[in-house]
Amino acid sequence: MSDALPLGSVIGILGGGQLGRMLSVAASRLGFRTHIYEPMENPPAAHVADRLTTASYDDTEALRAFAASVDVITYEFENIPTAALDLLEAARPIRPNRRALAISQDRISEKDFLTGLGLTTAPYSAVNGMDELQAALSRIGAPAILKTTRLGYDGKGQARLRGPEDAEAALAAMAGAPAVLEGFVTFSHEVSVIAARGLDGSVACFDPGENVHRDGILHSTTIPARLSPAQRSDAVLLAARILNALDYVGVMGVELFVTRQGLLVNEIAPRVHNSGHWTQNGCAIDQFEQHIRAVAGWPLGDGSRHSDVVMENLIGDDILRVPEIARERNAALHLYGKSEARPGRKMGHVNRVQVPAAGK
Amino acid sequence: MSDALPLGSVIGILGGGQLGRMLSVAASRLGFRTHIYEPMENPPAAHVADRLTTASYDDTEALRAFAASVDVITYEFENIPTAALDLLEAARPIRPNRRALAISQDRISEKDFLTGLGLTTAPYSAVNGMDELQAALSRIGAPAILKTTRLGYDGKGQARLRGPEDAEAALAAMAGAPAVLEGFVTFSHEVSVIAARGLDGSVACFDPGENVHRDGILHSTTIPARLSPAQRSDAVLLAARILNALDYVGVMGVELFVTRQGLLVNEIAPRVHNSGHWTQNGCAIDQFEQHIRAVAGWPLGDGSRHSDVVMENLIGDDILRVPEIARERNAALHLYGKSEARPGRKMGHVNRVQVPAAGK
Repeated sequence: MSDALPLGSVIGILGGGQLGRMLSVAASRLGFRTHIYEPMENPPAAHVADRLTTASYDDTEALRAFAASVDVITYEFENIPTAALDLLEAARPIRPNRRALAISQDRISEKDFLTGLGLTTAPYSAVNGMDELQAALSRIGAPAILKTTRLGYDGKGQARLRGPEDAEAALAAMAGAPAVLEGFVTFSHEVSVIAARGLDGSVACFDPGENVHRDGILHSTTIPARLSPAQRSDAVLLAARILNALDYVGVMGVELFVTRQGLLVNEIAPRVHNSGHWTQNGCAIDQFEQHIRAVAGWPLGDGSRHSDVVMENLIGDDILRVPEIARERNAALHLYGKSEARPGRKMGHVNRVQVPAAGK
Repeated sequence: MSDALPLGSVIGILGGGQLGRMLSVAASRLGFRTHIYEPMENPPAAHVADRLTTASYDDTEALRAFAASVDVITYEFENIPTAALDLLEAARPIRPNRRALAISQDRISEKDFLTGLGLTTAPYSAVNGMDELQAALSRIGAPAILKTTRLGYDGKGQARLRGPEDAEAALAAMAGAPAVLEGFVTFSHEVSVIAARGLDGSVACFDPGENVHRDGILHSTTIPARLSPAQRSDAVLLAARILNALDYVGVMGVELFVTRQGLLVNEIAPRVHNSGHWTQNGCAIDQFEQHIRAVAGWPLGDGSRHSDVVMENLIGDDILRVPEIARERNAALHLYGKSEARPGRKMGHVNRVQVPAAGK
């Protein structure tokens, strides 16, 4: 642990949402303090952080002071402006590194990177204007989905095409932004691997979870996922290949489609991931602590699971069900402290721990 | 949950040590904020709390402002000055209640209360001066231990007597404070029950843990404890009797000696307890969340355990073993963020989760 951050060090976290909040709690367990950088007032992470800077990502003075006050910088979301990253990186290490961020900020770079590693993705084609869209449609076929290449998040900036007749409306929905057409894939279910890589290059993965989405937002993750032993090891090896290729440090979420032709990479996220929240109640070391360990140059946990878990997201008005969930046995609530419950807003989650029926 | 605190409420915590720190994290999981009141600068709890007041317990203005800013008040230690409690209680509910505090602040009141409930304690006798000490010694016999009646904590204010020849030195060690002579008890081991009682009067206990002390400080707690089924149910019923008699709301630690004559109550603590730290990695709802649930008028968790755990305290220089512990499988570290490691100071703990050898 020669490169390891000493106890009492300060970890800077860009973004003050629920992921930053849970990272901050995990950092405290390892004796670290956290400093949150977030443009919005009263962010969830600030309730459990040592320090908060409320400033925009173009406030160079605030960014410099933030960097000077921390020992290492990490982030809870991938769409951080490049200029801010340049400034921060000049002062302190940013983990995971810039390359992982650059790739995941752009759907085309991401898919080019993945296919370059020999991994399979859905068929895709860059689309700038109607000519390219029509060419892409004839190559990929319909139905397909048109997405802006950047700032994709929870189903925003996306349009479905049942056939060529939807091309005009779909292109209009992109509002002139560079886009990518993705073919639909026939898959039986989606799984994700929460993978981590340490500063020493060691890789550890949590068991894959099986995801169910509703309205483009993750609804639940069930551990263990339905996978054959061969698929399970494929999933883990594939995730490790991605992390090694990026010289990655931290936790990454890798979403996979399970198809007859094998596993297909849907998306990667260079951060802790909603589909890894189950680890909080299924493992001695959860994804948040795993990320902090990696970023701090500590040894990784091995990802082993002591319990099966079903994670359910609480979205919008689901928060009204908290009194009822609080009465359930073995249901661990994790609420984010957001004051307003808007439709589609992630308000919390519940990890239902599957306890063996017989007393031990 | 009609009396339940709504999401976003603020829980005031008296005391900013590691217990306050872990209570604050648990409160955040339920969507609450915390406000810590602590006389010392830079307390561990402040790193993960929404607000901190640094003021002494005789600062009436600070106490009033604190009370006005919170919805309910709880505490992490029992020796809070009475005048401060009077002032706070006039503004907001204090949970657990004053009676529990008053009893546990005084060893004689505590033992009188317990024996009044029909429970067994070590033989004891109040000692004010040499005459009473000699009378107590002849009744109880030696070896025995003389303790100040108040402010007892981790072996401080205590003196052992091998026989009457030690009486003078022991009495001198009390420095004129009221004291109690306690007889030694022959016991095979010590266990503790972490019990909780909700605002609705429901009681839930975690499985008893088996404690090992070193130099008067808790060294480890092992779950499950060595107890027969009859002893196990005795332990839980006895804890419930204590909580019900006090109309208690919150978590209490009940330390018991296992003797040939049955279970004997060593000590009660009206707060979350070091011997309950294992619940963080053994249960879906741990003792800290259980306490917050009670204090907030929420339903209690049932205390069920998904994993066996061995908790080890990291005292003083044990903190130097963190790099080595961080490499262990299934070892969950919980460090308190204290900057200075003094001998006897609790710096953190590790919960070693006993994961079944075969993959599930």
